[in-house]
This record gives sequence, structure tokens and C-alpha cells, in this order.
Amino acid sequence: MDHDVRPVWPGILEAYQRFLPITEQTPRLTLHEGHTPLIYADKLSERLECHVYLKFEGANPTGSFKDRGMVVAVAKAKEAGKRTVICASTGNTSASAAAYAARAGLEAVILIPHGYVALGKLAQAVQYGARIVAIRGNFDQALAIVREVAEPLGMEIVNSINPYRLMGQQTAAFEICDVLGRAPDALYIPVGNAGNISAYWMGFTRYHAEKRIDSLPRMFGFEAEGAAAIVRGEPIAQPETFATAIRIGHPASWEKAVRAAKESGGAIDCVSDDEIASAYRLIAQEGVFAEPASAASVAGLLKRHKAGDVKQGETVVCVLTGNGLKDPDSAMRLASQEELVVDGDPLSVRRALGGFQ
Amino acid sequence: MDHDVRPVWPGILEAYQRFLPITEQTPRLTLHEGHTPLIYADKLSERLECHVYLKFEGANPTGSFKDRGMVVAVAKAKEAGKRTVICASTGNTSASAAAYAARAGLEAVILIPHGYVALGKLAQAVQYGARIVAIRGNFDQALAIVREVAEPLGMEIVNSINPYRLMGQQTAAFEICDVLGRAPDALYIPVGNAGNISAYWMGFTRYHAEKRIDSLPRMFGFEAEGAAAIVRGEPIAQPETFATAIRIGHPASWEKAVRAAKESGGAIDCVSDDEIASAYRLIAQEGVFAEPASAASVAGLLKRHKAGDVKQGETVVCVLTGNGLKDPDSAMRLASQEELVVDGDPLSVRRALGGFQ
Repeated sequence: MDHDVRPVWPGILEAYQRFLPITEQTPRLTLHEGHTPLIYADKLSERLECHVYLKFEGANPTGSFKDRGMVVAVAKAKEAGKRTVICASTGNTSASAAAYAARAGLEAVILIPHGYVALGKLAQAVQYGARIVAIRGNFDQALAIVREVAEPLGMEIVNSINPYRLMGQQTAAFEICDVLGRAPDALYIPVGNAGNISAYWMGFTRYHAEKRIDSLPRMFGFEAEGAAAIVRGEPIAQPETFATAIRIGHPASWEKAVRAAKESGGAIDCVSDDEIASAYRLIAQEGVFAEPASAASVAGLLKRHKAGDVKQGETVVCVLTGNGLKDPDSAMRLASQEELVVDGDPLSVRRALGGFQ
Repeated sequence: MDHDVRPVWPGILEAYQRFLPITEQTPRLTLHEGHTPLIYADKLSERLECHVYLKFEGANPTGSFKDRGMVVAVAKAKEAGKRTVICASTGNTSASAAAYAARAGLEAVILIPHGYVALGKLAQAVQYGARIVAIRGNFDQALAIVREVAEPLGMEIVNSINPYRLMGQQTAAFEICDVLGRAPDALYIPVGNAGNISAYWMGFTRYHAEKRIDSLPRMFGFEAEGAAAIVRGEPIAQPETFATAIRIGHPASWEKAVRAAKESGGAIDCVSDDEIASAYRLIAQEGVFAEPASAASVAGLLKRHKAGDVKQGETVVCVLTGNGLKDPDSAMRLASQEELVVDGDPLSVRRALGGFQ
């Protein structure tokens, strides 16, 4: 291909206007979210004898898939004349809400459970100028308060109970089909709050209804074993996993996720922290640095492959929901490497590197 | 605009093939680097009465502009039959080298000065599987050793002395022109090792020679005051600034940078850490979270504007070289906000938010 001028990607609202609840009055808010790379995973594809693509959502403006839905939710809040958005969050949602609020000229209020959230996790939201309020209580209480105070204070809730969030998130499914020119045979995706698998399914079925694709993928969602509420069939009071972004014991979109898996001929299953850690390293070997939670999709693919459930030659997409830079501590902790310290001369370095063996 | 299918961005090597030293034999390596957003800065534009765009290089695969040059350097190393790349680095270069080496199926060796680099900064390189060797010595010694051991060990150096690095980096200038449909009136850019300003200038003059643009921008580079070797006219033994990515006392591309500024009618100047910190917050208000060093470009624009040197209505581009997620500690440290802790009930939260004033 010779050089070919390409216009900048205009962002979700403009690119997928036709599929979103956008009116003439909706502000064309964007940080150029979406249009994230669909990366062919050479090594995994060879090993599994199928075509594995990684949908790297960590390339979004604030480093996670949340931006796709947040841009819609914040634009609609502004259209409705709201001056402040509010959410309860301990991580990616707060960063995204704060960024789009700043961009739109709105205020953002973030409720967090006091003492529970590492302050470093909130660096983005703080930098974007959000007002952080720590409450003496847990996350569920924070969300309950958000629901109660938003209306009297005239604030718009941008937690995932805001329906515009999932509408925006479905655009990732559109992009996959646009790039592949078809639907994949199967989609693998981490399941935490269970909204994202629901949004992808909404996107695929919409494209199918519009005859842009002529088949639908099977949807396979993976919870972390220690937070596998849907798999176990009951909420988990104390969910445990190092993959913090899916450490959720009572998924908000539970039924929708189950329906997506069932309707598509897929499943909701779970993977252990060891399986997640191992997949996390395999993803890095493809050149991609994702959040630990993201690796649940690849861990799920490996689990099904081991069980003989992945057909040779299939085209599968694994969704990587967030950027590894969000959690550098996990990278360091999981690295098997010991630090190698040598004297500062060429001979010592060559010896250390095996150059004189 | 109605929905319009856009193919995925193919990455630097394919998109800008014609301008790069690519042959039939060069592997088409990519992590879909480049094609980073050029974000219109509403608030800054209004305040400065000109058109300010932010070129957000933090959207690259490993979170910095280094990916543009690294993809070329690593592809050429692989083409030459090398099995290992080596560099001395304390930050963004190591992450990029490790990622592209992993992608290309090569080994990466990173030399760092022992005790000088926070291990967290190396999280990416470690996760990508690079071999880290810490030497008892400083950064200059590490680089000197790299230069000495690379050839006998058959490794390719991918520090910026590798000429393919700057060739790849010039593509950011191409993209700016492609999106604007012209060259900006001025480009503002942080100066550390001084390679990037040189690469942008190379890109603009190339496009000008090819008659893709009919004017050239003035190039304004900004060092941090405590590391302003070029401005002072002599190397600085102990450079000091919180903007670590430009904490460099002896820039490798010194003369090239001076030439770019001079030829274009621009300048190399410096900004204080306070000016950088203040610009860093203004960038976040536009919805963008950049590395502290990135803010030197915007700080430079503000400094020149204050001096009356920015014309009304001008179109200027500020380059933001890296992602803010690379340095969450700075974000937390610079946040003026005190943590607000309240009881976990709606009334207390409404009081805290001023809802009952």
C-alpha cells in the first residue's frame, strides 16, 4: 500500500451516530475514543491452531473500554442541561467519568468507600479535577447513596445503571465486524459487572438485524474464580481475585449476561487467578500490556481449548478491557525475574549476558 | 456523517512506507502505533485566542511516542537477522523496545543504572519479557557499555543513536499535516534528549519538499529549567526536574535540535517545574492525562503567549509525548485536593457536596 491520507478517527458519537441515541442537540463530545486496534496474536494463533485476535480496549483515551459508554452518557447529561455527573467507583469508571466531564465542561463527583481504595488508583480522576468524596461504608453503600442524592442535587448518574453506557459500549462489537468484514466465530470476554458482554451481544445482534453480518458469534464470558457469582448462581459477599477490575460479587447486568451467553450458544464460566496470571504473560508476549482482569478472556480461551472445545481454524476475538499501565504493581509482582546486578564494565555485562560462555 | 466503515489503522510501516527505509524483506511489524489523536483544546484555544491542538502521543501502544521509531528499528534489526536488541534506558524507551522485540519474536536486553531506577518504572519492560541488567554505575556508563558490547554479542542497539528511530518518529509530523490539511503555524514540543524535535522537523521539511504542505511551522522546543543544557549552552552534570522523561543533562541530538529551531525561525527555551505543573493541570482540564514531561510543550506555549509572542488566530500544535498513566505518583502529588471523608449516609454526602447550603 502506498501512502494514503486517512482522516483522524472522529470518535464514537460521530462514527456510529446512526446506532446511538444522538440528536441534533447532542454535543459532539469526543476524546477520540474507540477505533481501538484488533491485534492478530501470532503466537497464540499458532499454538491453538486458530485465528486469535486481541481487541485492545486499553488504547482508549483513559485506558479502558469504559470510555465508549461514558462519552454517550456524559454527552446526554450535558444535552439534558445537567451541570454535574456523579458515580460510585473505585477505578476505571471514575477515570472515564472525570475525563469526559472535564472535556464537556461539567463537574464530576466520585464517591468511594473510605480506606478501601488505594489513592493511586484515583490518580486519573483527581488529575482531571473530579471531586472525590470518601464515605465511611462499603461500595454498595456508596452506590446506594449515589442513587439517592443524584436527583435532589440535579446530578446525572453515570454508573452502569445509566442506559447510555451499554449503548455506547456496543460500538466495540461494530468495530470488530467492520475490521474482519464478518462476525468472529466466538468472542471471549472478562465478566465483572457483566455489562460489557451484554453490550457486545447487543452490538452483534444489531449488526445482524441490519444485515451487516450474516452470522453471530458464540459469547463466552469469564469471571474470576473467587468472584464467580453467576457461575455459582449466587452473589458473593467477599469476592477475591488479584484482577481488581472484575472483583465484583454482585454483577449489575447478571440476567443480561446470562441471556447473551444462552442465546448465542456460549457460556459464562470462570478461571482461576493462576490461569489469569499465566494468560497475562502470554498476552505480553504478543507485545500487548493489558490489565490483569483483561487476561480472563485469554485464560478462558485456553481453558476451552484444553477441553477440546475450540475448533481448528476458528476466528476468535479476545477482549482486553484495560491498559496494563493501570496496574504496574501486578506486573512487578508477577514477574518471575530476579534483579540481576553487575559491575559497570563491558566484561561483567558480557559475562552476565552469556557472551563468554 | 452517517456510519462509514473505516479499516483499522495498519501502523507506521505500512501507512508511511513510502517515507521509510522499508524493503520487500522488512517484516511488516506493528502494534498499530501512530494515528494518535490530534485533540482540539477548547479551553486553551479560547483563553489564548488561537487554535490549539494537542498531539496525544500517549495513545501509542506502549504509551509514548517512542513506538514510532522503535517499530522501524526493531523491524530493521529483524530484517538484518539480529536475534536480540539492546538499549540503556530508565523509562519509555525500555518499554517500547521490549514490546516490539516481543512482537517480533526477538529478545530484548535493557541496561539500567542500579539503584537509580524505580522498579515500578520498568513494569512494562519486565512484563514484556525483557532481560533487565542493573549495572553499578550511572546512565552514561550504561549507554557506553551498550555501545561496546552490542557488536561482539551480535545485538542491535535501539537507543536513539540508531538512525531508524528518528526516521520513524517523523511520521507524527506527517499525521499532523494529514489531519489539518496543512502545516500548523507553530509546533511546541518538550526537549529532553532532543531527538523528537529533530524528527518532527525532518518530517515537516520532507512533506514540504514533496509539496504536500506549502509552508513550514516554527519549531519551539522546551527544556525543563533544571535540565536546560541547550539553553545554557553546556551539559548539566546533575539535571533536576520532576518531569523525569526530560531529565537529561547531555542531549544526544543537541545540534540537530538547535538547527531545527534556527532554520524554522523558532527557538529552544526552557520552563520551570512550576510552569510544567500548572500546564499539566490545564491539559487535564481538556480531558487529557499526559506525562508531566509532556506538559513542557503547553507550558512553553503559555510562556510565549504571556510575552506577547503568539499571534491571535494562529494554529499551533503542542506535542504530548507520553501517557499520564506512566507516572500516577506525580498526579497524586500535584493534586491540590485534600481527601474529604464523610459518614456513609445521603444526608452527610449532600452536606459535603453543598446540597443544603
